[in-house]
Amino acid sequence: MQKHQHGGDIYTSSCRIDFSANLNPLGMPERVAAAACEGVRRSANYPDVHCSGLRMALSEREQVPAEQIICGNGAAELIFSLTAAEKPRRALLVSPGFAEYEQALSAQGCDIRFYELREADGFAIGEDYLDCLTAELDMVFLCNPNNPTGVQIPRPLLERILAVCQEKHIRMVLDVCFLDFLDKPRESDFNMLLQENPQLFLLKAFTKTYAMAGLRLGYGLCADEALLARMELNRQPWSVSLPAQMAGVAALKETEYVEQARALVGQERAWLREKLTELGFRVYDSAANFLFFSGAPGLSEKCRSEGILIRDCANYRGLTEGYYRIAVRTHEENEELIRVMALWQR
Amino acid sequence: MQKHQHGGDIYTSSCRIDFSANLNPLGMPERVAAAACEGVRRSANYPDVHCSGLRMALSEREQVPAEQIICGNGAAELIFSLTAAEKPRRALLVSPGFAEYEQALSAQGCDIRFYELREADGFAIGEDYLDCLTAELDMVFLCNPNNPTGVQIPRPLLERILAVCQEKHIRMVLDVCFLDFLDKPRESDFNMLLQENPQLFLLKAFTKTYAMAGLRLGYGLCADEALLARMELNRQPWSVSLPAQMAGVAALKETEYVEQARALVGQERAWLREKLTELGFRVYDSAANFLFFSGAPGLSEKCRSEGILIRDCANYRGLTEGYYRIAVRTHEENEELIRVMALWQR
Repeated sequence: MQKHQHGGDIYTSSCRIDFSANLNPLGMPERVAAAACEGVRRSANYPDVHCSGLRMALSEREQVPAEQIICGNGAAELIFSLTAAEKPRRALLVSPGFAEYEQALSAQGCDIRFYELREADGFAIGEDYLDCLTAELDMVFLCNPNNPTGVQIPRPLLERILAVCQEKHIRMVLDVCFLDFLDKPRESDFNMLLQENPQLFLLKAFTKTYAMAGLRLGYGLCADEALLARMELNRQPWSVSLPAQMAGVAALKETEYVEQARALVGQERAWLREKLTELGFRVYDSAANFLFFSGAPGLSEKCRSEGILIRDCANYRGLTEGYYRIAVRTHEENEELIRVMALWQR
Repeated sequence: MQKHQHGGDIYTSSCRIDFSANLNPLGMPERVAAAACEGVRRSANYPDVHCSGLRMALSEREQVPAEQIICGNGAAELIFSLTAAEKPRRALLVSPGFAEYEQALSAQGCDIRFYELREADGFAIGEDYLDCLTAELDMVFLCNPNNPTGVQIPRPLLERILAVCQEKHIRMVLDVCFLDFLDKPRESDFNMLLQENPQLFLLKAFTKTYAMAGLRLGYGLCADEALLARMELNRQPWSVSLPAQMAGVAALKETEYVEQARALVGQERAWLREKLTELGFRVYDSAANFLFFSGAPGLSEKCRSEGILIRDCANYRGLTEGYYRIAVRTHEENEELIRVMALWQR
């Protein structure tokens, strides 16, 4: 079994507070949990293979036709279905980035190139990314804001990237799983560009926004309906569990909860950034519900010895020891994190 | 979107009683549902990527090392992971058979051959199957008892098939999802043959035995640990939801419930067989929790008009109109089915 590379593994090392997974600090809404339990009660039946109710609710929320929506057992499943459906020969990734893009491309024997983010640029994507979009590419993955850095891609640049991908027939997968935690998520919304850009595949998740990582629910939006049909051929029909489908429908009604979380995350992100800077860490410019920073090696082990899990980013391609990512949590939890870090940092 | 080909689709056509899905007629055990709901409550966390607790419980139950167990989002997911990991060039299937084997092989561009079951043989596999196991095959799928026919493969023949597959390096996937409903499941158990036959992959599911189809949980047993590692590389790490993992651990304790179901199914299978025969249907020799029979076309539409869903098998490769499959359910439900069928059959 390969070594697990991700945050959120509370099973291997027990902890008091998990800062390693980037989930909504308010926890799963009660009505979402209740809907999932109702789904459990109905689970002597198979789930709806078409996810009809959920896709209708998503269609209304996203203002995208239901035929252009595909649901998955977490967004991660869709990453693998996507590469299985497209079988890209050459792809471009950003490093550091989410490890599953590389995993899913490698599973298809794809030749992967990397656009390397530079610390000197604050890990921001530059205009030179456009030069990497050569015609022999079949697919690119971008995450906005990026994981693990939290750095946003400026909208004008992202639109130019999209135009080039559309022109050169490059499948552009834009992972916006953390969009809901931006201060102004609408400004980074690309839904309106889907119809004119069938090369664009938008990847979204319930996992982070509604803190329902254990239930597994994500979805994709794409105007290329033939691609969605090919994805369906590369996976089982019953991929999305009945509890997840019912939880998803309930979650889409929790608009106030999402707004509260956004406000909390915005406030606490600023507070944590200040405190981490005071402690001598270099904190990068995250717009998401997590912060990326660098300092002396060994911090994650020290935190773990105090029952706190943070994401050690040393195993990310393009990073070395001394890079860390923490989720933005409630003020009480964030204070505890800073208290523990201060013990070691002074 | 492709047309759905399976039973259990209670969403497209509403029904009073679903005989089209082959699930335990006793429904999901209360303690399993409670465990799944407890899993929902903990689902603000990611699931354990290693399914450690579940695999330990399975290891004890199956008497197979935990390292040789892989869990999946239903057995169906593992079928796709298997073909993705093996990328077989030539495979042998049985027709009629479970459609997802063909789907998963086609997704890999595999050349598929079919061993055609014959009505004249009561849809039983004959010794001539052995002649089809030529060295250029990479993979075979067998389901015992077979779906949709319910016909068992005699153990001596199955052992000879295994020996040939082992000798000729053919991956033998033996789907035993319906094993628990046999009168004597132990006699068809192949676990003891795993260690000496690393080509053997046993596919099992919680879905049918514990009536938890909506939760999605299946597993595979194989002594070829390198294959399991390759399967992991072809899918996301968080494939099995937290509610499913907790439900699985709880389900393995429900031994009395499984015995009750086995007794009920045995009794009701005999009763249904008698009644269907009286009604003039030809009933084949099912040993499973479902019955396969033939008669005049149009029966499934007639049942549906009475709020009863049965599996019309006309869309199975190798079958035509007039073949049907029904699950064995409780006596009251079975009586209602026979009452409705009698309306039309006389």
